[in-house]
Amino acid sequence: MRVAAKEIEEIALGAAFLGTGGGGDPFVGKLMALDAVDKFGPVELIQPEEVPNDGLVIPSAMMGAPTVMVEKIPNGGESLGALQSLEERLGKKAVAISPIEEGGINSQIPIVVAAKLGLPLVDCDGMGRAFPELQMVTFHLYGITATPMVMTDEKGNSLELDTIDNMWTERIARAVTVQMGGSALIAIYPMTGARLKESCVKGSVTLAMKVGETIAGGRARGVNPVEDVMKLLNSKILFKGKVTDILRRTTAGFAKGEATFEGLDEYRSKTMKIRFQNENLMATRDGKPVTMVPDLISVLDLESGLPITTEGLRYGNRAIVVGTPCDPKWRTKEGLQLVGPRYFGYDFDYTPLEELE
Amino acid sequence: MRVAAKEIEEIALGAAFLGTGGGGDPFVGKLMALDAVDKFGPVELIQPEEVPNDGLVIPSAMMGAPTVMVEKIPNGGESLGALQSLEERLGKKAVAISPIEEGGINSQIPIVVAAKLGLPLVDCDGMGRAFPELQMVTFHLYGITATPMVMTDEKGNSLELDTIDNMWTERIARAVTVQMGGSALIAIYPMTGARLKESCVKGSVTLAMKVGETIAGGRARGVNPVEDVMKLLNSKILFKGKVTDILRRTTAGFAKGEATFEGLDEYRSKTMKIRFQNENLMATRDGKPVTMVPDLISVLDLESGLPITTEGLRYGNRAIVVGTPCDPKWRTKEGLQLVGPRYFGYDFDYTPLEELE
Repeated sequence: MRVAAKEIEEIALGAAFLGTGGGGDPFVGKLMALDAVDKFGPVELIQPEEVPNDGLVIPSAMMGAPTVMVEKIPNGGESLGALQSLEERLGKKAVAISPIEEGGINSQIPIVVAAKLGLPLVDCDGMGRAFPELQMVTFHLYGITATPMVMTDEKGNSLELDTIDNMWTERIARAVTVQMGGSALIAIYPMTGARLKESCVKGSVTLAMKVGETIAGGRARGVNPVEDVMKLLNSKILFKGKVTDILRRTTAGFAKGEATFEGLDEYRSKTMKIRFQNENLMATRDGKPVTMVPDLISVLDLESGLPITTEGLRYGNRAIVVGTPCDPKWRTKEGLQLVGPRYFGYDFDYTPLEELE
Repeated sequence: MRVAAKEIEEIALGAAFLGTGGGGDPFVGKLMALDAVDKFGPVELIQPEEVPNDGLVIPSAMMGAPTVMVEKIPNGGESLGALQSLEERLGKKAVAISPIEEGGINSQIPIVVAAKLGLPLVDCDGMGRAFPELQMVTFHLYGITATPMVMTDEKGNSLELDTIDNMWTERIARAVTVQMGGSALIAIYPMTGARLKESCVKGSVTLAMKVGETIAGGRARGVNPVEDVMKLLNSKILFKGKVTDILRRTTAGFAKGEATFEGLDEYRSKTMKIRFQNENLMATRDGKPVTMVPDLISVLDLESGLPITTEGLRYGNRAIVVGTPCDPKWRTKEGLQLVGPRYFGYDFDYTPLEELE
């Protein structure tokens, strides 16, 4: 399968949904990816099984607060630089590029890098969604180390990091990201094809593509695509309402905040609150949790069905909030320890959204 | 000349004076250095002129807040690791180790590294004193880049940094230092012998040794050594007094604060304030500046003549405050731009201490 202009549009749209509000505005990334395939030709999308077991795969991404990413458009050169520095360090060339998360701008950066290097993109990621911290990947659950990693910024600063564990990678890299102006390009979790196959979330790129295709298709036919997307992902509607309050701070490299929705239609006189840290993490309706991380919480425009990112959310937005079950890898004991509600400071045990009312 | 136990004692003592209160407690570094020469033999001290022009010299140091360094004793292995990683990156072995500053613990770290590697130590540094930030070296005035540099911590984290200028090195490395627990070992400003010769402050190690020898000698004879030290360094007495107030915060990787002294003897009913950021930066007597950075401000115990570091300063300390002219390289326009009073936020034009009353 080939990723060209049409697929990029679909992936960007789908990744805005799977990004659960985070991962940066896919619009910026989309422009970079469209430009890259225009210049270097379409990118080949391969399945994890097609990667040679001893071949080197490098996930490529942007890290930082999405609020910043939107304003500091990367030129694409940095991500290439990070990847090539890591190849040099490892003394080995990558045979394929993988997304680390299938959310927002990070669905597009790997396409840019793959196009420029003429390498295939692997149809997988490390999350099946987006998460705010570097250790929050299924790779971590399989003992794969984030370092050696390389970080670069658009000014030309770069660094190579080796840490004793992936929490230290997050800690040090986050502090550097703040200094680099709030966002940085990274090449991280270098691994063999064999390791990728066991540890990744498979099919993430094609899933994003299908979600995007469904949304775009619905819009083309003049129907709200939410119902079709829900069928595709086993999602459920959590709320319909209007944003009446939005609190957002960009702090320590994250965009943190809370959005309050007042109900419409069947949700009239009900209230929903969504708390986020780059990504939407916890949705409560009248104070009771209805979906919690690692399950996905997506906010869609009520009329168009288009996903709204946390940084795009505005007072008065009329929206539909949708919950989607996460990848089963996250519902394990280890997965929930890493990305469950308690990690983010919410005093709830994780309950799958299927079991919540 | 050889640096063994006696010289290490003297250098540590002298560097506490030249460190102007900063650079970390030399006691900790001294123990490491004594241990290193005990195991690996004395270190050869060579003059900058003896370094081959094309030979690689690497300055080795600790960065961070001295308050932290005192509690997080480095094991020496980290500094060696940083240096060897940098050698590996450069594909070249160092022919000699240089101090970056001749203050406190950083007068000792290079001895530890030199001893372990069997390399000579160069009789010079990049300051002729101690300063709080990485770009504050005479090397910088000669266009030598701080990167590639390597940072390591005692836990085993390490990183290699490449920045577009030395201010960015300081900015990123400082943030990493904070994450690493407040202090880190660094190998920085790699340069050729030719570059070292033109850019260093020469004779810093032997100067520290002479200062230490003078202080120790005076104490052995039961006389206060301050007069002799002053003759050696063209210093002048700024104040005699008792610490009545000390404000100290460890913030963003620095120990910042202000000490107030009430006058004794001929300074009775006068007040001195010393403001510091790791190092003593500005001394005012009754509100009027009497010595300002980059000139040296050293606080010595009134009875013993022993230097007191900013983190060692306590309420009730009876002290003599001494000002010493800095290296002429710092009194240039470029030097004062880099380390003059205005850089540190003091609203004064630099005036040499010889011209202040």
